[in-house]
Amino acid sequence: MIIILKSGASDEQINHVLAHVEALGLKAHLSRGTFRTVIGVIGDESKLQVEPLEAIPGVSQVIPVLPPYKLASIEAHPKPTVVDVSGVKIGGGHLAMIAGPCAIESYERLDEIAAAVKEAGANILRGGAFKPRTSPYAHQGMGPDGLKILREIGDKHGMPVVTEVMDPRRVELVAEYSDMLQIGARNMQNFVLLTEVGATNKPVLLKRGMSATVTDLLMSAEYILSQGNGQVVLCERGIKGFDPATRNLYDVAAVPLCKGLTHLPIIVDPSHATGRPDLIPPCALAGVAAGADGVHIEVHTCPEKAWSDGAQALLPAQYAELCEQIRKLAALFGKEVSPLPGVVA
Amino acid sequence: MIIILKSGASDEQINHVLAHVEALGLKAHLSRGTFRTVIGVIGDESKLQVEPLEAIPGVSQVIPVLPPYKLASIEAHPKPTVVDVSGVKIGGGHLAMIAGPCAIESYERLDEIAAAVKEAGANILRGGAFKPRTSPYAHQGMGPDGLKILREIGDKHGMPVVTEVMDPRRVELVAEYSDMLQIGARNMQNFVLLTEVGATNKPVLLKRGMSATVTDLLMSAEYILSQGNGQVVLCERGIKGFDPATRNLYDVAAVPLCKGLTHLPIIVDPSHATGRPDLIPPCALAGVAAGADGVHIEVHTCPEKAWSDGAQALLPAQYAELCEQIRKLAALFGKEVSPLPGVVA
Amino acid sequence: MIIILKSGASDEQINHVLAHVEALGLKAHLSRGTFRTVIGVIGDESKLQVEPLEAIPGVSQVIPVLPPYKLASIEAHPKPTVVDVSGVKIGGGHLAMIAGPCAIESYERLDEIAAAVKEAGANILRGGAFKPRTSPYAHQGMGPDGLKILREIGDKHGMPVVTEVMDPRRVELVAEYSDMLQIGARNMQNFVLLTEVGATNKPVLLKRGMSATVTDLLMSAEYILSQGNGQVVLCERGIKGFDPATRNLYDVAAVPLCKGLTHLPIIVDPSHATGRPDLIPPCALAGVAAGADGVHIEVHTCPEKAWSDGAQALLPAQYAELCEQIRKLAALFGKEVSPLPGVVA
Amino acid sequence: MIIILKSGASDEQINHVLAHVEALGLKAHLSRGTFRTVIGVIGDESKLQVEPLEAIPGVSQVIPVLPPYKLASIEAHPKPTVVDVSGVKIGGGHLAMIAGPCAIESYERLDEIAAAVKEAGANILRGGAFKPRTSPYAHQGMGPDGLKILREIGDKHGMPVVTEVMDPRRVELVAEYSDMLQIGARNMQNFVLLTEVGATNKPVLLKRGMSATVTDLLMSAEYILSQGNGQVVLCERGIKGFDPATRNLYDVAAVPLCKGLTHLPIIVDPSHATGRPDLIPPCALAGVAAGADGVHIEVHTCPEKAWSDGAQALLPAQYAELCEQIRKLAALFGKEVSPLPGVVA
Repeated sequence: MIIILKSGASDEQINHVLAHVEALGLKAHLSRGTFRTVIGVIGDESKLQVEPLEAIPGVSQVIPVLPPYKLASIEAHPKPTVVDVSGVKIGGGHLAMIAGPCAIESYERLDEIAAAVKEAGANILRGGAFKPRTSPYAHQGMGPDGLKILREIGDKHGMPVVTEVMDPRRVELVAEYSDMLQIGARNMQNFVLLTEVGATNKPVLLKRGMSATVTDLLMSAEYILSQGNGQVVLCERGIKGFDPATRNLYDVAAVPLCKGLTHLPIIVDPSHATGRPDLIPPCALAGVAAGADGVHIEVHTCPEKAWSDGAQALLPAQYAELCEQIRKLAALFGKEVSPLPGVVA
Repeated sequence: MIIILKSGASDEQINHVLAHVEALGLKAHLSRGTFRTVIGVIGDESKLQVEPLEAIPGVSQVIPVLPPYKLASIEAHPKPTVVDVSGVKIGGGHLAMIAGPCAIESYERLDEIAAAVKEAGANILRGGAFKPRTSPYAHQGMGPDGLKILREIGDKHGMPVVTEVMDPRRVELVAEYSDMLQIGARNMQNFVLLTEVGATNKPVLLKRGMSATVTDLLMSAEYILSQGNGQVVLCERGIKGFDPATRNLYDVAAVPLCKGLTHLPIIVDPSHATGRPDLIPPCALAGVAAGADGVHIEVHTCPEKAWSDGAQALLPAQYAELCEQIRKLAALFGKEVSPLPGVVA
Repeated sequence: MIIILKSGASDEQINHVLAHVEALGLKAHLSRGTFRTVIGVIGDESKLQVEPLEAIPGVSQVIPVLPPYKLASIEAHPKPTVVDVSGVKIGGGHLAMIAGPCAIESYERLDEIAAAVKEAGANILRGGAFKPRTSPYAHQGMGPDGLKILREIGDKHGMPVVTEVMDPRRVELVAEYSDMLQIGARNMQNFVLLTEVGATNKPVLLKRGMSATVTDLLMSAEYILSQGNGQVVLCERGIKGFDPATRNLYDVAAVPLCKGLTHLPIIVDPSHATGRPDLIPPCALAGVAAGADGVHIEVHTCPEKAWSDGAQALLPAQYAELCEQIRKLAALFGKEVSPLPGVVA
Repeated sequence: MIIILKSGASDEQINHVLAHVEALGLKAHLSRGTFRTVIGVIGDESKLQVEPLEAIPGVSQVIPVLPPYKLASIEAHPKPTVVDVSGVKIGGGHLAMIAGPCAIESYERLDEIAAAVKEAGANILRGGAFKPRTSPYAHQGMGPDGLKILREIGDKHGMPVVTEVMDPRRVELVAEYSDMLQIGARNMQNFVLLTEVGATNKPVLLKRGMSATVTDLLMSAEYILSQGNGQVVLCERGIKGFDPATRNLYDVAAVPLCKGLTHLPIIVDPSHATGRPDLIPPCALAGVAAGADGVHIEVHTCPEKAWSDGAQALLPAQYAELCEQIRKLAALFGKEVSPLPGVVA
C-alpha cells in the first residue's frame, strides 16, 4: 500500500501515520519528494485495506497495490476453475449454453421450451419461479410451484436447471429444487443473500449489478467464496448506459478483463444486456469471441404470451441458428460446448 | 397508451394488436399515418403496462402516458405528505436534519456524537448496526448490540433514531429498536426487503440506488406504499458517474424532479454522494436550495478511528456551522428545521 | 410524429396545436383518450422535427416516428455501402485492417512499422500528424512534415493512408496527402469540420464521440453526407463509462445496432476503447464477431519510445497473431479482409 | 510521481526504469515492498507526465501527484481570479447573471428579450449567431448579421454581450462584435479553437463537455491560459447521465470541486443541464448555494416561436422571480450580483 501525504503535511502528521502503520505490525518506508511525501507500506496490506487511512489528518490519497479480493484472485489460483453443474462443465474450455424462458409459466409451456432449447443445443435450462419485478403490480412468479415444475422438466429432459433466489429465507428451498442458484443483478450487493448462498454447496451464477465495477463483482464473488462455496460463475449482463437504444450497455471487455483478474468462469447474457432480439445473436457471438465461458439466453416459444420480458426473447429457431454459430466459433478457439450429462461429447 | 406499429406492419398484424387490446376491455383508436400506423388505447392503461406488447409481431414501440406508479404519484395525492418520525416532521416545509456516525461503534462514542449533533441542530440520530460492506473482511457492524445502544442513546438525548435494515428476517427486530427504517442504496431494488418494511408501521428512509432512475426510485417506494405503509422519505445519495474526483455523482436535480412527480418528501445525503468532507457543506446547501426536505450527514468526533467511511465524515464543529447556514437558507424559503419532539419551535 | 398533450390541456390549446401543424401543410388526426389527448401528424415529419413543439402550451411530449437522419438511414439505401479507400474496400463483406502508430514520429520509425503491419495483414496505414492532446504541453504532432512522411511511406509499401484532421483550415492540405480523412472522437460534433470534410471527395473515418448516442453518430454522418460526400465509415471506439479499469467503455452492441439503422460500414477501434494491450485482441475479435467491417489498431515497434499512447499499442508480433485470428473469424462469417490495391485476393 | 512495478518485475526492468527517470534529470527513490516495488520520483514531475511510462516493460501503474494543469491550478494563483466582462465582474463574490435567447432571431425579438432580462436583473446578454445544431437540416443561426444585431442591442441596453464561436476562422470576427467568447460543450476539446480564443484578449466562457471530467475541463482552460489569455470563466452545464427524465445530468458538486482546484470563476447553466423549465429555477438556486459565481439561463418572450431550444426557455416573469431569489441567496453568502457597467451597486 502507498500512502501519499498532502503537500503541506507536518512532521507531526507524518509521524502519526508512521505510528499507525507500525502499530499494525507493518513496516513503513518514507520517501520525501519535492512536492509530496510518500509512505510505502511493507507487509500484509489486507490489514490496512479496512482502515480509514484517508481520514487521518495530512493524508491525501491511499493506493492499494493488491486487489481487495483474495480467494477470487488469479494470484490465489492461477488455473481456471471449472464449475460443474450436475455434470455440465463451465470454464477451462467448456461452454455453458443456458437457455429458457424468463419466467416459468406452466408445465406445458416449460416442457415445450425445454424440448426446443435442448434440441438446439442448450445444456442448462433456466426459468424464474421468483421474479424481481420493478412494479409491485407485475407478476411476481409462480413461487414454489414453479420450482417443482422446473425440477420435473429438467429431469424429464436430462438438463440441469438454474433459477433465481431473491430471499435469504428461500435459499434452502431453491437449492433443493435446482442445480445452480442465480443471484440477479439487483441483488449483486445483497450481502445477506450472498452469505446464504455461500453456505450452500450449489454452484452460483452471479450476475453483475448495473452499476458494479468489475472489482465490485469480484468482491461479491469473494463473499460467496469466503463462506466456503468455490463454485461461482460470473455473468456480464449489461450495465447502465446513456443511450436509450439498448436496454443496458453490454460491456464485453469485462470478459477478458475478468480472465486476467480471476480464475472463476465468466459467461455473458446478451438478452438482458441489449433487450432486443435483433442484437442478441451478434452480441452472443461477440461474447464467445472475447473469451466467455458460456452464453445465457432467454428463449420462448410464444414471446407475446410471456409473462415477463417477452420482447427480448429469441424464438427456438433463432436460438438454434445461434447455437450452430457458437459451436463453430468455439471450435475455432479450441473450445467446445459442454455435452449434457451422460452424453459423450 | 400509444402503440406505434412497424413501418411494414400488415393488416393482419394490426388486427391482431387491436384484438389483443379489446380483449382486455379497452378501446383502440387507429390512426394511419404516411409512414406509420398508430393505435391509441383508451381505458385503464395499467392493464396494459404489465403486458409484453412489444413482443407482438408488427409492434415497434409502446409509449405509456401514465406513470407506472400510482400511490406514489402526485396525481394520487396532490398535497405533500408529511412523514412523522416519532415527533419530528419531514416534508411540507419541515426539514429533517439526520446526523450521526456511519457505524455504531460503542456506547461512549455514540453518546459523544449524539450530544454533539444535537447541540449543532440535528433532529434525528443515525448510526448503522448492520453494515453493507463491499468486502466480506470489513467490519459488518455490531448487530443487535448496536441496536440497543442506538435506542438507549436516542432516548437519553431525546432524539428519534434511524438505522439500516438489510435482512428481511431482521425487519421486526430493527423496527423494535428504531423510529425509522433505512433501506440502503444497494437494496433499493431488493423487493423482498421492500415488501417486509412495507408491512411495518415504521417510517422508511428509502435511498436511491446507484443506477436507479427517478422512476425506478418511485417504483420502489410504490412497493412499500402498496403494502399499506405510506410513510416513505426518499433520499438522493449520488448515482454512478464517470468522474473519479467524487465517490458518486450528486444528482441534485432529482429533488425538484421528484417534487413534480410525487407527494413523498425527499432529502439529500451529500456525505455518500460526494465522499469528500470539503464538498459536503456546499452540496448540502445546494440540496436545500433545490427544495430538499432535509439533509442526511455523517458526523464523527474522531474520523480516523471510525470503523467505516471515516474519510467522508464531518467533524461536529463543521456540522454545526453547516446547520447554522441551513437554518438561514430554510428561513429564506419559508421553511424550518423541525424541532425535536417536545420542543416548541 | 405523435404529439401527446398534457392531461389538463384546454380545447384552445389543442386547437392551437392543430392550427400549427396544419399551417405547415400537414394533416392532424386527433384522438381523445381517457387520460390524454393525442395528435397523430400525417405528412412529411421532417418539417416538424426542427420545430419547438414542446414549447407550445399544453404539449407534454413529442414523439417522432422517423429517424432524424435521412441519407444515412437504411430506409434511404437498403444495400450496404461499400467504401473504397484507394482500392481497399470497406463494407459489404470486405474488412478494413487499419493499423499504425498513434503519431508519426519519423520516416524511419513509420517505415519500420508500416513494413511490420503490412506483413501482418493490415491494408490501410494510419498515423497522426496533427494530434488532439488533452494537455497543451504534450507533443501536438509533426504537422505538415508528418503528412509528407505518411504519404511517402504509404506509397513505398503500396498501402492507402488515413490520418486525422482537426482544423477546418487544414482539410484541403490533409486531403492532398491522404486517402482517407479521420474525424476524431472529440470532434464528432465539430459541425464546422464535418461540413468541410463533407465538401471533399475523400472517404471519411468518423469516430464516435465519448458521450454520443448512436443517433448522434448517425446525425454527424448525415452532416457529411448532406454535403455530397457519401463515403463515410463509422467507428466505435469506446464511450464514457464508470469503471476505471478500462480507458473507455467498448460498446460492441453499437455494431449490430448500426447495421439495422444505416447502410454505412462500421469498424471498431479496441485500442482506444480499452487502452490496454491485453484487452485489445479479444475485443477486436468480439467486434468482428458482432459484424464489424474492420478493425482499427495502434501498433508500434517500440511502445516506450512512442510520443503518444504507447501504453496501448500492440507489438507487431501481437498484431500478426490477431490478424491471423481475424482472417479465420471473417471466413466463418463468409467475409474476407480486403486485399491491398493491386493484389488479387 | 510514483511508479508502481508489476509483481514479477525483474531487476533488469527496474534498472531500465531508473535509468529512464534519471536520464530526464530527475531523482528516483526505490522502495521494495513485500508484493510490489515502488519508485518515487523526485524533481519536476511535468517532464514525466508526457512520457509513456506505462509502456515500459515491468511497469504496472503510474500515479502523478501533481495536477496536469499549472496556470489554472489554485497552487499557481491562490486568490480567486475576477474576470471583467466590459465592466461586469465575475468571481470573488461577484455574480454574473447571463441571460437571453438560445438563438438571435431578429432585431425586434432580441430587443424585447434584452429589455426584459435587464429589467429582471441580468447583467450580460447572450444570444447565438452561430448555432451548433445536431441536425444539418436545423437552422444554423443568423451568422454575421446576428452578431451585428447582438452588438447593437447590447449597446442600446448598456449590457455586455456573449456569443458562441465555433469556427477558428471566425474568432476574430466574433471577438470584434462581442465582449465575451463562448466555447460550447461540444467544442470543449476542440483544441484548435481553444488555441485561437487563447490568442485573443477577450474573456472566454468555457462550457464543460458532456463527457468531460473536471480535470479535462481544467486542461481545456489551460490551453487558453497557456496562450496568454487568463480571462476564463468555467461553466457547468450538465454531463451525460442515464436517466432520460432530464436532458443532461447537472453536476452541481463540480462547483465546489473546482473552487478547491482552480482560481478561475465557475458559473452554472441549468437551462442546458436540465432542459426543463420547471427544474431550472431550483437548479439555479442550488448552483448559487454551492458557490457558483453566476448563472446562465435561456430566456425567451415567446418560446414556441424560438428557433432553437424553445422548450427549455424561461419566460421573463419566471426569470425575474428567480433573479429576486438569487439576489437574496447571494446576500446570505456575502456576495452580490455584479451591477451593470456604469451603475453603482
